[in-house]
This record gives sequence, structure tokens and C-alpha cells, in this order.
Amino acid sequence: MIGIFDSGIGGLTVVKAFMDTLPGHDILYFGDTARTPYGTKSGRTVIEYSIQNTEFLIEKGAKIIVMACNTASSVATETLKKRFDLPIYEVISPAVDLALGQTKNNLIGVIGTRATIESGIYEKKISGLRPEARIHSAACPLLVPLVEEGWIGRPETRMIVKKYLHPLKVRQIDTLILGCTHYPVIKSIISRKIGKKVNIIDSSVALAAQIRQFLADNPQTDDGLGKNATASFYVSDITRQFEKTAASVIRRKIKLTRVDL
Amino acid sequence: MIGIFDSGIGGLTVVKAFMDTLPGHDILYFGDTARTPYGTKSGRTVIEYSIQNTEFLIEKGAKIIVMACNTASSVATETLKKRFDLPIYEVISPAVDLALGQTKNNLIGVIGTRATIESGIYEKKISGLRPEARIHSAACPLLVPLVEEGWIGRPETRMIVKKYLHPLKVRQIDTLILGCTHYPVIKSIISRKIGKKVNIIDSSVALAAQIRQFLADNPQTDDGLGKNATASFYVSDITRQFEKTAASVIRRKIKLTRVDL
Repeated sequence: MIGIFDSGIGGLTVVKAFMDTLPGHDILYFGDTARTPYGTKSGRTVIEYSIQNTEFLIEKGAKIIVMACNTASSVATETLKKRFDLPIYEVISPAVDLALGQTKNNLIGVIGTRATIESGIYEKKISGLRPEARIHSAACPLLVPLVEEGWIGRPETRMIVKKYLHPLKVRQIDTLILGCTHYPVIKSIISRKIGKKVNIIDSSVALAAQIRQFLADNPQTDDGLGKNATASFYVSDITRQFEKTAASVIRRKIKLTRVDL
Repeated sequence: MIGIFDSGIGGLTVVKAFMDTLPGHDILYFGDTARTPYGTKSGRTVIEYSIQNTEFLIEKGAKIIVMACNTASSVATETLKKRFDLPIYEVISPAVDLALGQTKNNLIGVIGTRATIESGIYEKKISGLRPEARIHSAACPLLVPLVEEGWIGRPETRMIVKKYLHPLKVRQIDTLILGCTHYPVIKSIISRKIGKKVNIIDSSVALAAQIRQFLADNPQTDDGLGKNATASFYVSDITRQFEKTAASVIRRKIKLTRVDL
């Protein structure tokens, strides 16, 4: 069983990629909607919440943990790997690998929440693998609430996206990492504002490929394989707005169960 | 000692009003910044958090509790009054009293978070006191993140405020209640967009007057009276952005202490 957690609904873009490319595997999702968002909070608090979320997923039977949240991936990966004895996947590395495979001029842009950008994790990973690459990053804290409010096609959203991307555009990046799992929802606006020629990196597909490889190498991990796969969705808070946005992200009917952590 | 809580920084507009109009009283503030915002969450979750916040303030010596948060005031007042044996103040009633005192055409607008507006609390209170009044309300969920990001003077903020206020403006309200403690920070933009002739109701000043009256009637409640008053600020998470915005709201240097609830 694959356990996935996120601060709220962003991780559902990852679940969707998994359902599309990993059919036949059980999925267990936890969205920490009572304490969302993580991206504006301190590393210490996000680590604490990530530990609690992982403990919940393990208790429910998860054999692999996927942090479908860039903020948690940025600050909590090391702690979770030390603390828990099962495979922990995060969304940063697959995005970095993809970006390095696609850039031609080695000018790479990264957008994310304030916590993700301040962690400097993308710079560290990219510089470690390719010291000649130049990384330009921008925190875009208003994009999460805009996506969660469903303000996808509005002019204000386009203006705010344009303002956030401007410093990356003038640097002539040829590759842009969507460093937040909410952003694929507004990928087409981002692509239009940064320029159609810029490669847009969405880590969820690359992450799903990594997990598929792991499952092929470790068939004993997945009890659900070959049976009718199930997907269970747990959240720490349920609101009508959340149900609405979740349904539109995942494009499937889902049943949400509320749990207290 | 006056114990005040809010989901984050919004309640600091109330603290500022208290410091300005109630000098010589000890203030104890708790901002639940690790779980902020409340306004997008369910009533059940907000009630749970409000109980924990109140317990914390009582433990620290609060003799009066002030919910400086419209969302908490909307959904948790009844529960807190039943559960705790000390005076509980909220921000809804003073705003309603003020609005009824100022409206001439009995067309009253209310703006707030989604949770506050969905609770229908302003309609209930106003209709109870003046059945002939007509209330027009609008949820403005993006204003909290815009204020917290400090996007006060930006054109996008003005556009979003205008969009949110449009349905109230066409109804020709003559009085507008700021049903969220974040909104006084952008009061001048709101006033310009709704029209300069519309009365803008900010509950913090009316609330401070209520508390002053209570303290005059119950002098034994306030140990700090006449001594050098202190103000202590506790939060559940500390980030640089929060420190920056808090300092600009309260216009004083404050020391934040982080606590785990």
C-alpha cells in the first residue's frame, strides 16, 4: 500500500498521476487540511506535522511513504528517513533529475512556497549534480490560496503569476520547476506567462515512474497488486470548498474520511 | 489580565486598539500561527482549536477571554461560554451594535472569511435586533493571504477587493461591517472601493469600549491595573514573514514566544 501525504489538496495532483500510471496499486492519502497550508510555516512545525502524518499512514498499513508536498519534502526528508524504517519518497529529486535532463542553457527556474524557496533545497541538489547550472528561484505564496479558491481562469491570477515569474523570465531560464504540488493545476497559465518555449517540470509523473520501478524491484511490498486496487482518502478537516476543489483536481468521485491526528 | 486569541495576526488589530484605549492593563496574546488560517476550515475544527487556545490563556493567568477572530467568534462562542467559567468576549456583537447605530437605510453589508459568512451569525444577530434590516454578505477568502503577504498597496489587491465588494455596492448598503480582524489593515482600500459615504465598522474599538466598561465594573479582575502594564505575545509558530507583518500591524516592537499547544 502506497501512503501519500500532503498539507491539503496539492498532493492530489500526485495521486492523479499515480492512478493514471500505476493502476492496480492501493493508495492511502492523507491531506492535513486542518493545519494547511504548510508553505507559510516554519521548518520546525512542518517537520513535526510530517512525523505525525507518517505515523498515521504507517498505522493504516502503508509500506511506502510519499511526501506529495514540496514544503514537507524540503524540510522533513532527512528526519523522516532517520526515524522510519520504510522507503520514503519525496518530490524534489525527481523534479531535479527531469530538469537537468531537459535544460540546454543550464539556466533553471524554481517556483514554490516561501518555506520551500527559503530552504534552498533545489539549489543544493542541482549544484551538487551540476555545478555549472545557475538556479533562479521565486517564492509565490499567493498561488496556493488562488488554486484552493478555484480562481484558475481569472485575470487577477494571471497578473499575479506574471508578477511572480517576471524575475525568472528576464533571466532567460529555459526550464522551470513547479516546486509545489498545487501548481500543476495552473500549469497552462504559468506556461503562457513564462513563455511557451520554457520546459515546465511537474514532478508527479517522474515520481510515479520512480515508484513503479521500486515496486517492480520489490514486489512483496505491494499487497494490493493484481487485486482490485483501492484508494482511501483521509483528511484532518472537511469543508465544502475542499470537497469541490478536490473533485476538480482528481477528476474522479472520492469519499473523504475525517480523522483527528 | 486580558487573554486574547486569534488564528494568527489579525487579532493584533484588536490588541492595538486595546493598547491605545486601555492603557495600564496586562495583555496576553495567543496567535495560532501553526494552524492558521481558521476561516477556510470547518466549524468543528475551529471549535476544537478555540477550546485549546482558551485553556492555554487561562493556564497563563487570563481572567477575561477575548476572541479577536471573527471565525472563532462565529462558531465557538456558545461552546466556550458553556465550558469556561470566566467572561468570554467576541467581536461580532460590538460590530452589530455599532452598525445598527450608524445605518440610516437599514441596508448593511458584511464581509468575512468563508467560515464566518457561512455561519450566518451576522444575519441572525442583526435580524434578532432589527427585523426590518436587510443584510448582504460576501465571503472574501483571498483577503487574509493578501494582508498576511503584505500586498497592501498592490493593484491586484485593489482589483480583488473591488470584485468582492461589487455585489454589496450594487445593493446600495450604507454600512459595511469588516467581519474579519485582518481587514482593518486594508480599510482605506475597502472604503475607496465600496464608496466613501459608506460607514465602515471595525469592531476592535467598540470591543475595547465594552471591555473597559467591564473592567470598571469589576476592578478585582485586573491585577495589572495601576502597575506597569505588560503585554506578552505567544504564537504556535514563528516565521520571519509573521514577525514582519506583526510589527507593521501593531507598530510597536514585540517579542514573540513560541509554544506547542
